[in-house]
Amino acid sequence: MSANTITELTVARGPRVAMVGAGQLARMTHQAAIDLGIELRVLAGAEDDAAVRAGAEALVGGAGDLDALRALADGCEVLTLDHENVPGDVLRALEDDGIRVAPPASAKRYAQDKAYARRALADAGFPVPPHTLVRDGAAADAFAADHGWPLVGKLPAGGYDGRGVFELAGRAEAEEALAQAPDGILLEPLLELERELAVIVARTSDGRMASYPVVETVQRDAMCREIVAPAPVPAAIAAGAHDLAERITGHIGAVGVVAVELFVSGGRLLVNELALRPHNSGHYTIEGAETSQFEQHLRAVLGLPLGSTALRAPAVVTVNVVGTDDEGDPTERLAAALAVPGAHVHRYGKAFRPGRKLGHVTVCGEDANTVRAAAVRAAGALEGRRS
Amino acid sequence: MSANTITELTVARGPRVAMVGAGQLARMTHQAAIDLGIELRVLAGAEDDAAVRAGAEALVGGAGDLDALRALADGCEVLTLDHENVPGDVLRALEDDGIRVAPPASAKRYAQDKAYARRALADAGFPVPPHTLVRDGAAADAFAADHGWPLVGKLPAGGYDGRGVFELAGRAEAEEALAQAPDGILLEPLLELERELAVIVARTSDGRMASYPVVETVQRDAMCREIVAPAPVPAAIAAGAHDLAERITGHIGAVGVVAVELFVSGGRLLVNELALRPHNSGHYTIEGAETSQFEQHLRAVLGLPLGSTALRAPAVVTVNVVGTDDEGDPTERLAAALAVPGAHVHRYGKAFRPGRKLGHVTVCGEDANTVRAAAVRAAGALEGRRS
Repeated sequence: MSANTITELTVARGPRVAMVGAGQLARMTHQAAIDLGIELRVLAGAEDDAAVRAGAEALVGGAGDLDALRALADGCEVLTLDHENVPGDVLRALEDDGIRVAPPASAKRYAQDKAYARRALADAGFPVPPHTLVRDGAAADAFAADHGWPLVGKLPAGGYDGRGVFELAGRAEAEEALAQAPDGILLEPLLELERELAVIVARTSDGRMASYPVVETVQRDAMCREIVAPAPVPAAIAAGAHDLAERITGHIGAVGVVAVELFVSGGRLLVNELALRPHNSGHYTIEGAETSQFEQHLRAVLGLPLGSTALRAPAVVTVNVVGTDDEGDPTERLAAALAVPGAHVHRYGKAFRPGRKLGHVTVCGEDANTVRAAAVRAAGALEGRRS
Repeated sequence: MSANTITELTVARGPRVAMVGAGQLARMTHQAAIDLGIELRVLAGAEDDAAVRAGAEALVGGAGDLDALRALADGCEVLTLDHENVPGDVLRALEDDGIRVAPPASAKRYAQDKAYARRALADAGFPVPPHTLVRDGAAADAFAADHGWPLVGKLPAGGYDGRGVFELAGRAEAEEALAQAPDGILLEPLLELERELAVIVARTSDGRMASYPVVETVQRDAMCREIVAPAPVPAAIAAGAHDLAERITGHIGAVGVVAVELFVSGGRLLVNELALRPHNSGHYTIEGAETSQFEQHLRAVLGLPLGSTALRAPAVVTVNVVGTDDEGDPTERLAAALAVPGAHVHRYGKAFRPGRKLGHVTVCGEDANTVRAAAVRAAGALEGRRS
């Protein structure tokens, strides 16, 4: 079961943290753990997962396998997650064992079940888009009577980067989709969005919180491609987003880092999705903020003092590196990216695949347009695009 | 021989770099390598060395063992070092094999043999302290006739953090020391030092260079304890230090990062020592400069574009964490250090020992006194000192 050997060492250990998942979020959490002398042990799906390649101690096993999770947590102070894919009953079983799970299962559910999150947040008075969970064409038609076709359909669980989200032109398409969706489909109107925003909030189990500046996220092909910090929005919108994100984080009892994704539609803020883990919209914090979201997540799940969330520059932009049609020569592309002044390159050590997130680039500076141009250029170089 | 298993992976690899040594310098180089997607393989003395604990792929072997070094370099684009302890003839044998060694053996000698470095730099016209290599008491007396007792004695090789450096009160003490020093002793006058400075310069094999701002290093008990960036010195001294460091780096043909340590004595700059590797005086660059010295070292040895060396704040101070008499509770101490606003904590995962460097703390800000106070407080917390 063990990928890297777990040896008994003669030196004093730091705190130990177990993380379910070994993708780029676990990889960057491992880097932060090294600084703090925290030993991160990850549950990997395969021995070449991004965090294992970066040297995190790893067990290989399934995220839904209770025995694997128990083995992972053994000897660790807390168990946390880099994705949404541990079923709620498995998380609750770990909690029943007395294992500290951060975030707790009851909070994690808000990131695992979109229909639950919409309903529970609406019930608590938070602004969410109009929505309904439907299981048949008649219910879809009834919702369309209020909001009109086309509608947006979402699978309640398992989607990310636009997977599990689709546009439905009418009842026939809805019925076709429902035939593949045993848990039903969450329907929402096709909203006119002015912007998409995100706020990263960290919270400890004793209720301390620290939130980062509001950022704008720019999507292409339903995937987050750019993060602009701070978001270029009026102060009232930023303050509202900040307040909403902190109130939600406290309300759901999250522990660790939470990404609250928001829509601005018709001048109003609406809650889109929650992620209870480090998140793509927070990658800019590695160089752009006093404390990276990865270090902050570790601090929060361990109950350590939270770090400053202040920006380190007036403008910080992160651009994702996404696999193109041609893998090219990675070293040549690295050289081209590093030639861009101020480009902070992060490669995830992942196998090349068109459309897959392979890394990101962050640039900090005085002016958002200038730093964005540099980040786009460096990310484009890594993707093999001519600048 | 292998500590971590070297598996054949199905994903595209980044460039591969071999590093001899697995202490904190290799540990922090590994963190930088993760960002760039560079695979770092280290030669460790033991399986619990700092870089191995951070997950660098490791071979365990002796730094003077040519076969171990050949195995380390196998499949890597370049071999570099995190210490001075590979004998010159072993480095030359690797070069004769066709292995790219960075820095080359001919340059590394300047960091390995203090007597050679003094003589060769003096011959090339660089300002060095008065010095002589002696093998008997009569020669020591002759040098003392010009400079007076007490003198400073240095073993030509193998010293660091004040080891191998001692004050000699007179001929009898010199003869006692010489009896233990088969390679003789380098004698120098006890200079009145106004300050000690250091400059980190990176150089590629095709002669490109980038140098960081001049910093002040503060020693206690002959060990570097604090680094203040930029050094609080007149512009002419800073410019002179910068120029000297670049000219020396080019003259010796270094490849990778070089730390040039300088004395300011009687208002003049004198070259103290060279280190041809990432160096304690450059740890502040991780948060304090646009490009960390560890990433810069990797860029330089691989011939990639060098990064910006600009400071990210007007004042950056690093304070080392040194083992005290009492190990205490490391987690409690970590919490106390993280409670200091702005403290960037780096723990090396090393076994506790009084007098041993166990980590460092960096703080960036507007004013040197303020950031120094915060860094001293956080480092003190990690050492278990009451603030």
